[in-house]
Order: sequence, then structure tokens, then C-alpha cells
Amino acid sequence: MMRLIVQKYGGTSVGSPERIQEVAKRIKRWRDKGNQVVVVVSAMSGETNRLIDLINAIHPTGTAREKDVVLSTGEQVTIGLLSLALEKIDCPARSYTGSQANIRTDNAFSKARINSIDEGKMRADLEAGYILVVAGFQGVDNEGNITTLGRGGSDTTAVALAVALKADECQIYTDVDGVYTTDPRVVSTASHIPKMGLEEMLEMASQGSKVLQIRAVEFAYKYNMPIRVLSSFDEGDEGKSTLVTGEEKIMEEVLVRGVAFNRDEAQLTIEGVPDQPGVAYKILGAIAKANIEIDMIVQNVSSAGLTDFTFTVHRNDYDQAKKILCETGKSLGATSCRGDKKIAKISIVGGGMRSHAGVASKMFQALAKEGINIHMISTSEIKVSVVIDEKYLELAVRTLHEAFGLNTV
Amino acid sequence: MMRLIVQKYGGTSVGSPERIQEVAKRIKRWRDKGNQVVVVVSAMSGETNRLIDLINAIHPTGTAREKDVVLSTGEQVTIGLLSLALEKIDCPARSYTGSQANIRTDNAFSKARINSIDEGKMRADLEAGYILVVAGFQGVDNEGNITTLGRGGSDTTAVALAVALKADECQIYTDVDGVYTTDPRVVSTASHIPKMGLEEMLEMASQGSKVLQIRAVEFAYKYNMPIRVLSSFDEGDEGKSTLVTGEEKIMEEVLVRGVAFNRDEAQLTIEGVPDQPGVAYKILGAIAKANIEIDMIVQNVSSAGLTDFTFTVHRNDYDQAKKILCETGKSLGATSCRGDKKIAKISIVGGGMRSHAGVASKMFQALAKEGINIHMISTSEIKVSVVIDEKYLELAVRTLHEAFGLNTV
Repeated sequence: MMRLIVQKYGGTSVGSPERIQEVAKRIKRWRDKGNQVVVVVSAMSGETNRLIDLINAIHPTGTAREKDVVLSTGEQVTIGLLSLALEKIDCPARSYTGSQANIRTDNAFSKARINSIDEGKMRADLEAGYILVVAGFQGVDNEGNITTLGRGGSDTTAVALAVALKADECQIYTDVDGVYTTDPRVVSTASHIPKMGLEEMLEMASQGSKVLQIRAVEFAYKYNMPIRVLSSFDEGDEGKSTLVTGEEKIMEEVLVRGVAFNRDEAQLTIEGVPDQPGVAYKILGAIAKANIEIDMIVQNVSSAGLTDFTFTVHRNDYDQAKKILCETGKSLGATSCRGDKKIAKISIVGGGMRSHAGVASKMFQALAKEGINIHMISTSEIKVSVVIDEKYLELAVRTLHEAFGLNTV
Repeated sequence: MMRLIVQKYGGTSVGSPERIQEVAKRIKRWRDKGNQVVVVVSAMSGETNRLIDLINAIHPTGTAREKDVVLSTGEQVTIGLLSLALEKIDCPARSYTGSQANIRTDNAFSKARINSIDEGKMRADLEAGYILVVAGFQGVDNEGNITTLGRGGSDTTAVALAVALKADECQIYTDVDGVYTTDPRVVSTASHIPKMGLEEMLEMASQGSKVLQIRAVEFAYKYNMPIRVLSSFDEGDEGKSTLVTGEEKIMEEVLVRGVAFNRDEAQLTIEGVPDQPGVAYKILGAIAKANIEIDMIVQNVSSAGLTDFTFTVHRNDYDQAKKILCETGKSLGATSCRGDKKIAKISIVGGGMRSHAGVASKMFQALAKEGINIHMISTSEIKVSVVIDEKYLELAVRTLHEAFGLNTV
């Protein structure tokens, strides 16, 4: 039976006319095996930055609608060029802008969300034997305005198209050949993961793994769409890859799937607040009102009816969040208000955790043995995250990677 | 009463962020005088060539549909940037791609013709106080495919929008401050023309004047839309300009308006063809069938029932046309078939000619006095064109410019 495959190629993969022609050859090989192929592409590497520079030279804080008009041209150039490259090697292809593909979004310019895709026309072109080349990262709102999905939105376009077209698989081509148990730049013995669960990938992505965009994984998780991560630098098509699927059974065999981390967060603490109903809302509500996202939150009840809060925000929001927190603290009569930017968050993720006790304590023990102090702890069904001093990051990742037997043999 | 003005700025005028900001200031001055303004822009200078280079690196002879997808991004970048520049100086603006402006064309990709413009949405935005910034050179066909109008199509977009919106004037900003009696690079005493007829402009453009695109002038002539040619390099807004209108009366005061010329043509001759009914069709039909455009045609009946034909084609088509002509000639028993690429066409144009005899003979006399031989002659109501050896071009232009009293005093 004929399979329908959606493939996504990032900016580096289509970074020059030569690389675009390489991608075309790869697509042809998939088609020649009897697959229908829909391709989603990003702007050529460097192009989006060039456009941002032009915008910044004129009006960096201008209307997002007009910025999206400019930014969406990057992908539009790539779809035309790739279609020409495919035609050149006798693969009839048709390009689609986000608007032509009817990728309907809300009107949150620069960070729009996909509401629906009307796939009728694309389906007809597929049946007519065309390869479809769709611009990633962009869509159109109900008034016909061009919208963009935000950086990395091309992954999301690919998964959304795969869902709308009921594709058999969504292939994300990147500069690495799949997902590893941790970042190989930190732990050289990191192991390649051939197959894992979407829920695990969701935790890995939200805890710092940068292989897949978290929004794309959320979309795939919601609609149970299998994703395969492959390298566009592999010569053939039978190279290593990671298949991320919703099939739970396979996943539970493994206790800990990988170690994710990030250095993007900062920690804030307020101490000696009277422990009354509504105090958490007073403190965190003020931060949220400023559109600052809060990640981890820990509250301790201390003696004498006073309590402490510690939470993390993105490092870029640290200064603003601290100012708001200290003002709130003052009005509540807090004894102190302080923060720390030099922290790191490390998480162990694995579908198997939910049926095994003792994973968290094994993690704490391994870190303690190396003298690494833990500031905060947060757990979910399939992950345990800790916040530590940034300077211990590499040591902690290596330690946990070994403690859970993730090294390549 | 509020006036509606359509302005068009070419690639050099919007060639950098700084120049885009200059254009924005100029637009603001027109708006502040109480005008509604619709702006049509080209791609930033150099951008279209950059995109063509990318296309040529991949598949120069590929599908025009996909080339248009790539090429149309140039203008899309400019409309976003100019809208941002206007917003920055407190002029609310909204950009429109050709598709968003509903500029409907046929599906002749790369040289599409405008069929209609649905101006409803633009009208509403104008009433709401927005300046509209529309991408020139592009449209959309009935299936939603992006089309381009061919190089220089931005002038046509501007005139077509002016017609659709019933504008009071269509202003074309270029790098010169209007139309001159001839090219000032050839005749330094060429005079600036403050006002002229659309019909005269039509002949000037079709005979070689490059100030305005001929398709744009045709459009303006058909719908009687006044065009003003201005320089975007003038500091103020009261500089020199040429107003091209349909008001015949003013125009007839002047005998000869200007001297136009071009070196783009080549001449082909076939001699000694039996003069039978249908022979012209046999000779010229074969050329036309190969999609080669024929400009001037001259036929002489010679003695003994034999006739000669001479005609001109674009120099780029010369080799192909000559091959076809000589093959046809052989089958018709022609005595010779030859051609000449080193020719030039010079025309005198003027609305006043139609009521004055002797203009042509004055022209021939002036050329004869300088020893310039005439190969071909062609006349219309308001122009006389001659073909001469290319080496005499500058001399002939200067001679005619002076003979008809066009020099500045």
C-alpha cells in the first residue's frame, strides 16, 4: 500500500542551492520507493537573521503583523527553489505558502497557533502525483493576514500537516541522527535512542532537549502522530534515526530514557511570608500578570506561621521578576527576597519510572556522592527535575548518565 | 476635498533601510497635506537579481509558477519594511501582497496580465485612516497561484490600482525628475517636459523612452488616468515633474514633443519573392509562429512580379528569425535573404503632427544633410520612425533634436 510521509528540512539542510539539490535527491529516493511525499521547509540558514536585521534597522518594536509579512518570505523562497530542484530531476512538485496550504491560525502575529488545515487541495495535488513543498513556520488568519508561528515553528507545521493529511509518519530531518540519552557534547558516551515514547519526548523537550520543538511534540502527542528524527547529512536513507511513537508498551521496558538539562532559568526566593490563605496567589499572580512564565515552584511551611517560596523563571525575565517579587514581598512583610541566576536544571526522564519506586532517591544519592547540593526538586509521573548550581552542570549530567546505565557499551 | 493619490517607488528609491525611511517621510508629507495615499513598491535594488541568481543556480529553465513564488518575495519584504517605517513616524500603514490586494491576473506566470482588482478591503482600510502599501509586480490567478507581471510590472500595478480606486493621480517616482525631449545622456541640452499627452507618452515609450513602462502607459491611456513622473531624489515635493494626461488640447500646441530611440532591434530582408496573394503571410507567419515579435515592416513591389520584404525583430531573436526566414525564402524561391544587427531606430513623436504636414520631410532632410542613410520608414498619426546604421545614432538624435527646436534655451 502507498504510504504518505511528511518530511521537514531545517535551515541548514536547505542552506545553499547545492544543499537544496541534495535534499531534492533524497526526496526523490523516498518517492521512488512508492511513497507520497509532503515536504515542509524552513528558510535558508542565515536568511531569517538577515530579515530580522532589516526590520531592526527600521523599527524593532513595530507591529508584529508587518514583521510577519517580512519574515514569512524566507520560507517562501525555499519552497520555490526546492520545487524547481525537484522538477529538474523529474519529480513534479508544487509549492504551497502557508496561506495557499490553508494553514489557519489565530491572529497572534509572531507566535500564532494553528487552528485548522484545509487539506482538500493538497490531497488533490498528491493524488495527481505531485510532491508538495510547503512553507513551514507560517499560516494565515481568518482575515487573510500572514502569520508566523515563531522560531522553530516549521516542526509544528510538519506535524500539523501530518495530522491533517493522516500521514503514516512525520520525518524531521536535522543536523543530528536522532535523540540521545543526553547531549553528546556534554557526555561523549551518550547513547543513541532508536525508539522512544511521545510522552517521554515531551518531557525531554520541555526539560531542555533541543532536538525537537516542544510545540511540535505536544501536537504529535495530542494526535498520536509518530515522529522520526533523522540526519539530513547521512548519505543514504537507512542511517540511524529515532522513532518517537505513542506505543506505551515498548517504552516501559526502560527505566530512565535520558538526562535533559537547561541553563535558561533563574531562581527566586521570598522568605518569612505570613502563611495565610491566598498568599501564593498574591506572590505568583503578580509575576504572571507581567506575562512572565513560572516553571518550578516549591513552598515550605516554616515555624511561627511564616512560609518560604522558591520558583524559577526564564533568565531573560529574571530582573523584572525580581523587582515585582520584592515589591510584593515588602507589602506582605516578607523577611527577605533574593535570587540566583547561576543555576541549572537537570531532569531524568523515562516512561518506566511510573511503575518503579526509588528512581528519585537513586538520583539524589548519586548527586550527593559528588557533593552536589540540590536547591529545588520537582517530580512528575515520568520525570524528576532538580535545580543545582550551574557550575556543577556537566559533572551532574555525567554522574546521572552513568548512574542510570545510559552510557554506550 | 480629500484627494486619493497612488505613488510608486522603484527599487533604487527603497534600496536600503535608510532610503525606505526617506520614502516614509515623503509619504507622510503627502498625507499631512490631507491626501489619502496608496503606495506601490518594488523589491529593494539588487534583491530581484539575488533571487534570479538562486533560481539560475538550481533550474534556470524550470516552471515559471515556482520562479514567481521566489521572485514575488522581493516586493513582499519591501511592503513590510515600509509599513514599519511609516508606523515609526506615526503614520498607521497596512501592507498588501498582490494576493491580499486581490490583484487578479491570468495565469501567464512571469508575464501575467491584470484582469481585475477587488478594491473593497483596501477602500475600507483607506477610510479607516491607513496608508496602504501594496507589493508591485505581482498578483494572483483564479486558482490562488502567485503570479508576477514581468520586470517593471510595478508601474503597471500602480496605474491599475489608481484606476481601480479612482485615484486623482498616479505618481511614479524614479531616479529622474520627469520626461525629457530625449535622453540627456545623448543630448546634454535635452529639455524637461512639464506636461504632455498620454498618447504621446505611449509612442515615446514604445519607441524607446525608458522613463515609464509601456504597459503602464497603455493602461493609463486606456482608462485616461493621469500619471506624474517625479524624482525620489528631490529634497522637497515641489520639484520638477512631468504630468502626463489625456487632455489633448494642450498637447496639440506642440509640433514635436521629443526624440526617442532604441538599439534593441535588428533588421531582416528577403528579396526576389514572387508577388502573389498570401506571400506576406507565408513569410511573416512563420516568424510569428515561433513567438517572435515583429516591429516595423516594409514591402516594395519591384519589377518582373517580384517583391522585397524588410522587417525588424528584437536583437535577441535575430539568429532564430533569420534561420526561419531563409528556410521560408528557399521554399518560395527568393533570390536573397540577409540581415543587419547594427541598426538603430529613431522616432520623432508629437501630438501636433496630426494637424501639420511636412514633419516627416523635415526629418528626412535634416538626416540627409548629415549624410545619414535611411533604411526603413514607418509612420503613425503622431510619430515618424526611421531605421539607420547604429553608428549614426547619437549624431542623428542630436540633429533631429536641434532641427525641431527642442534644445533648452
